[in-house]
Amino acid sequence: MGKGVKKPFTEVIKANIGDAHAMGQRPITFFRQVLALCSYPELLEDNKFPEDAKKRARRILDACGGHSIGAYSASQGIECIRQDVACYIERRDGGIPSNPDNIYLSTGASDAIVTILKLLVCGEGRDRTGVMISIPQYPLYSAALADLGAVQISYYLDEDNCWSLNSAELGRALNEAKQRCKPRVLCIINPGNPTGQVQSRQCIEDVIRFAKEEHLFLMADEVYQDNVYAEGCKFHSFKKVLFEMGPEYSSTVEMASFHSTSKCYMGECGFRGGYMEVINMDPEVKAQLTKLVSVRLCPPVPGQALLDLVVNPPQPNEPSYTSFMKERTAVLAALAEKARLTEEIFNTVPGITCNPVQGAMYTFPRITLPQKAIDKAKADGVVPDMFYCMKLLEEEGICLVPGSGFGQREGTFHFRMTILPPTEKLKVVLQKIRDFHSRFTSEFS
Amino acid sequence: MGKGVKKPFTEVIKANIGDAHAMGQRPITFFRQVLALCSYPELLEDNKFPEDAKKRARRILDACGGHSIGAYSASQGIECIRQDVACYIERRDGGIPSNPDNIYLSTGASDAIVTILKLLVCGEGRDRTGVMISIPQYPLYSAALADLGAVQISYYLDEDNCWSLNSAELGRALNEAKQRCKPRVLCIINPGNPTGQVQSRQCIEDVIRFAKEEHLFLMADEVYQDNVYAEGCKFHSFKKVLFEMGPEYSSTVEMASFHSTSKCYMGECGFRGGYMEVINMDPEVKAQLTKLVSVRLCPPVPGQALLDLVVNPPQPNEPSYTSFMKERTAVLAALAEKARLTEEIFNTVPGITCNPVQGAMYTFPRITLPQKAIDKAKADGVVPDMFYCMKLLEEEGICLVPGSGFGQREGTFHFRMTILPPTEKLKVVLQKIRDFHSRFTSEFS
Repeated sequence: MGKGVKKPFTEVIKANIGDAHAMGQRPITFFRQVLALCSYPELLEDNKFPEDAKKRARRILDACGGHSIGAYSASQGIECIRQDVACYIERRDGGIPSNPDNIYLSTGASDAIVTILKLLVCGEGRDRTGVMISIPQYPLYSAALADLGAVQISYYLDEDNCWSLNSAELGRALNEAKQRCKPRVLCIINPGNPTGQVQSRQCIEDVIRFAKEEHLFLMADEVYQDNVYAEGCKFHSFKKVLFEMGPEYSSTVEMASFHSTSKCYMGECGFRGGYMEVINMDPEVKAQLTKLVSVRLCPPVPGQALLDLVVNPPQPNEPSYTSFMKERTAVLAALAEKARLTEEIFNTVPGITCNPVQGAMYTFPRITLPQKAIDKAKADGVVPDMFYCMKLLEEEGICLVPGSGFGQREGTFHFRMTILPPTEKLKVVLQKIRDFHSRFTSEFS
Repeated sequence: MGKGVKKPFTEVIKANIGDAHAMGQRPITFFRQVLALCSYPELLEDNKFPEDAKKRARRILDACGGHSIGAYSASQGIECIRQDVACYIERRDGGIPSNPDNIYLSTGASDAIVTILKLLVCGEGRDRTGVMISIPQYPLYSAALADLGAVQISYYLDEDNCWSLNSAELGRALNEAKQRCKPRVLCIINPGNPTGQVQSRQCIEDVIRFAKEEHLFLMADEVYQDNVYAEGCKFHSFKKVLFEMGPEYSSTVEMASFHSTSKCYMGECGFRGGYMEVINMDPEVKAQLTKLVSVRLCPPVPGQALLDLVVNPPQPNEPSYTSFMKERTAVLAALAEKARLTEEIFNTVPGITCNPVQGAMYTFPRITLPQKAIDKAKADGVVPDMFYCMKLLEEEGICLVPGSGFGQREGTFHFRMTILPPTEKLKVVLQKIRDFHSRFTSEFS
């Protein structure tokens, strides 16, 4: 876009990134109170802050060197926070034990994901490690694989069945790949990014069975675990399902599960907080992992503190409980409403087909593009869905990501849009995309 | 050490890491006030906070998506903070221009150092990138090189000349290495870690001349730039010297300089704030760098905010100036006093030789170990200086790092100790090491 050229819109709406606060979502008060107290402990004397916020801040500060979040922590993360994470996982998974020694705090989930891939990728030529990732995928994976020289093994999600995953497709992808690499890792994103599906319990069992049979290390990207909206859908953690399948599975399948402070109801992306839990990892490999994370000293301590609050939020007997629950519920209810609205409105548009947004923060609708538009894009040297998204940005000021950025079946076109704009603004966005799509279709027909 | 066995000391003093707050140093009040305001902006209404702190917080929040430090920033870092960094560098270097486009904010300096090494290392076999690092060195470098499969080219600092660097030694190391790799990068730590020297202007000129002649990319690790204590010593930034050497150098030598919030007078390690400035980087390589940093989304925003305060501290006309300067000066004056004390006391001990601690936060004294101790260590399967440090820990509760962790000339032994403990405690530490060394020497003579 040229500078100074008048555009037919007053603001650019960035519906391209899952960045809740940038879209106007307000931080959870309790979390920010504790972070302020940790940053400037003189405020502990201030009677403006609730006692439970002070209590958390004191506990975190007591676990820091010199009682300061400015001290390095252990490379694996502050011990009492790792204990809180383990308790959180146990509660979430109905009592299945979690060992704090298996928890590694991280600089957001991305950092932990890259670290595990780095740990697992090795070999040369046809012995190179192959890593299975879904298509569509979150581009962190393909970028990290390219960077590490790993072999990407693409398995396709089933758009016709609400972006579900079936093990026949996993088998197809794996068998094709065996000639060119040593498949060793299977990555799953659930709830899905960019596709917004929530995997069924059955599907997760099938995936685990497949991983066991094929001796694959499971990487479960579960950063959207609180973002489940559709009726009948529920988040099932890979770990819980693994343990419920019995010792034959729970004592053999190697796994890492990732979580983050960036998504769910808190949306605190800027703090870069996160953790992973590793399960059944060979002790020697685990020792290497511990060594690997120590090179960068420690994850940011404010992010660790924030994570501690996420896994250990106000309890019913504490003064901040009511307001915390109110804020949390409001965010999640609004997201559920926006998920519903998005599906509903897109599916009224001829040429747009949209699966239900069961979870996460995105919709990945399929768009039908006229042949003339495809030809024009090719003549311009851009992929057709990029051509579409650029035109939408120019004409309506709405920023989306073309499906080609995530991968899609040959000949199909999509875009990813977040459902994060405030409800009224989201309605305008959906309306504008609807109008644009009709106009675009006419223009190139 | 066995649990429950009574030890002849009441506390373990961790003089092994450069972690100021863990050693009792208090955070700078102004910095923490602004961080509390950024974390919980409701405090902006509170009349307890000085106006300049509020002003900084507002400026930072205005630069964040949705006015929240919980939003992602640009991958390269928040633009107005990069501008502040550029202004800081210009002031520091007497007006030599700095372009915010060349500034990349990072997750501590370690992150930026690893990123640049990753960017520059390539090739296979004898074409593999060779990276020159000092011995003794900070182990981040050797770990990152091993991880990347780069070839480490060791050049030795001159212990007899206060750990200075001479270009004849650089030449020797380079020539030996040319048969086994393609030397491409020269890393310098100034002020030095673990050796505490401050390079002279002449020395820096020589290094730059050498880098130019040999077409080496210069990596200047300058995280201790405010930590200069010795009379007659001054911090000269590589960039300033480069530009003062004229366009023949300033327009050709490729360089990156690293800085951090973790050291100097603030010692805010836990926030993982940092930046690098790249100079004369090929635009295509720079595009790759920008792509590389975007994989992990963005550096932690609280660390970026803190960095902004470090590069743009209270000014003489602002209400917090006096108290800020008082706190800053007190920390730096205490460090200077402790640097002096350390050298003085160690040099009274027969068998310990200690160069002046000109800068940084460490002393790296040479210790003479009796042959019987060396033999005993070998029989126990540990390196002799590790044997020494373990015995010191067991007997006195003082934790140091053996010189072998940093590299040292064959047959010499050292340890690294931080000068961070509070003055009175440091005196006790020095006394205890003195007594221990005499006892150790007698025991093994």
